Amino acid sequence: MENMRSIKTSTRVCAIIGNPVAHSLSPAIHNAAFASLDLDFVYVAFRVEDVGQAIAGMRAMENFRGMSVTIPHKIEALKHVDVVEAVDRRIGSINTVISDNGKLLGLGTDGPGALKALADAGVAINGKNVLMLGAGGAARAIAFTLAGNGGPAVIEILDINETMLQQLTADLTAGTETVIKSNKMTDHCLVEAMSLADIIIHCTPVGMHPRERVSIVPPVLFRPDQVVFDIVYTPLETKLLADARAKGLQVISGVEMFINQAILQFERFTGVDAPVEVMRNVVMEHLKS
Amino acid sequence: MENMRSIKTSTRVCAIIGNPVAHSLSPAIHNAAFASLDLDFVYVAFRVEDVGQAIAGMRAMENFRGMSVTIPHKIEALKHVDVVEAVDRRIGSINTVISDNGKLLGLGTDGPGALKALADAGVAINGKNVLMLGAGGAARAIAFTLAGNGGPAVIEILDINETMLQQLTADLTAGTETVIKSNKMTDHCLVEAMSLADIIIHCTPVGMHPRERVSIVPPVLFRPDQVVFDIVYTPLETKLLADARAKGLQVISGVEMFINQAILQFERFTGVDAPVEVMRNVVMEHLKS
Repeated sequence: MENMRSIKTSTRVCAIIGNPVAHSLSPAIHNAAFASLDLDFVYVAFRVEDVGQAIAGMRAMENFRGMSVTIPHKIEALKHVDVVEAVDRRIGSINTVISDNGKLLGLGTDGPGALKALADAGVAINGKNVLMLGAGGAARAIAFTLAGNGGPAVIEILDINETMLQQLTADLTAGTETVIKSNKMTDHCLVEAMSLADIIIHCTPVGMHPRERVSIVPPVLFRPDQVVFDIVYTPLETKLLADARAKGLQVISGVEMFINQAILQFERFTGVDAPVEVMRNVVMEHLKS
Repeated sequence: MENMRSIKTSTRVCAIIGNPVAHSLSPAIHNAAFASLDLDFVYVAFRVEDVGQAIAGMRAMENFRGMSVTIPHKIEALKHVDVVEAVDRRIGSINTVISDNGKLLGLGTDGPGALKALADAGVAINGKNVLMLGAGGAARAIAFTLAGNGGPAVIEILDINETMLQQLTADLTAGTETVIKSNKMTDHCLVEAMSLADIIIHCTPVGMHPRERVSIVPPVLFRPDQVVFDIVYTPLETKLLADARAKGLQVISGVEMFINQAILQFERFTGVDAPVEVMRNVVMEHLKS
């Protein structure tokens, strides 16, 4: 483990920017990973209101290598970088900025983190019927990533917000080859969608700490062989996942997506393979405490 | 000693900005001082070309507490902060930026660092005849600080660059009560000035590593009871100081000014008394190696 005195003029800096950032696990995760590989990096947290100025500052500071971008800046940040990967332009947000000598690359690791969480769990996407509950920012990132990489037969999206739902449906239909269905979230539509879904991905805040005792999906709707993935990770097992597991379904916690998005960021920051167990252990220690 | 894993979301960041910064001792000095007092701070180095953007970025990043500003940005940096102390506006440069929740205070610690080096050595300024060799940025900072705080009878300035000399003389005459004399640096003027000076402050790069075997002042001009202060600190003892010491004069190395400007910055960054011996030891270890 390096100590602070070993920070040198060559040390490269990464940071999370967001508002708030006080409870972010990212400094703990990334610093532990840097230390375990003896990398000349340090990771700090900056609460930021003016994301454009923060990114301009990053560009001007040569050793400022990378940013993790979190709420509420993921959409605005995209406007202030030099290069954005095509899928992230379609998603319309980024969670990572990499500076190559002041040229800023923006990209998202939330969608790829979710895809990797599914792959790590042995879940094949190809040809499957995917039901997404929620059409917000995380759902956009995951839907575009699955459509672009996983080859699902159908992605069906339900949300109570019809404006967001229609926007995501239109963007996905224009931007991918996958069949996209969408409906306003009603009891009737949920029953029908659950009867068709192979993989259910929950992308709303329902069930998140401190309101843990709620779930969108009545347990009666689960069918054997369905996989349920909840992007919420506080608690580690939401009511949705506990209900699904009680019915014998395969479940994937949002913590897997969270860890994987950090792993993918780390590898972009450093160019080396992430120390996965070190990073996982930091997350688990913090979330269990 | 803290380790990197102890960096938290609350950790406040300080940095040196300049170009180049690769050989700066500031990260080693300040991180050792933070660690010795167990302060939740970290200090990094950023090579910067666009100082305005770097300072704008600092303003936008809430935990970015302080900057040390070095060559070539000390003059430009002054234009990008919100508040500048009066003496620093007259000097026309700053070496420190402090962010109080995005409100940026600019100030200089080079002049006060030189004044403290003289005070620490027991040298009284009041009523003395001070000879400054050189009229550049460091000379400006020191001259304004001495004139404003030390009460010398006369400050005489010699330089080969008459434009800089006249500018500094005019600014000092307008901005202070001290009697200011200035002359182009010639053999004749140096002989006369040395015959009158009580305290000689050398503010040019002459004698700096790697051209160590030169000095502006022929040893024959030294008189007993003079004090010689060289702001050059590589080597720790310049030829000027070695010559003066061989004649029995009191000498002060530029390293004292360097340490003191860092101490004064540290106290502005943190609001607590600097661990002076820790900081001195880091400087001495580096300069002797």
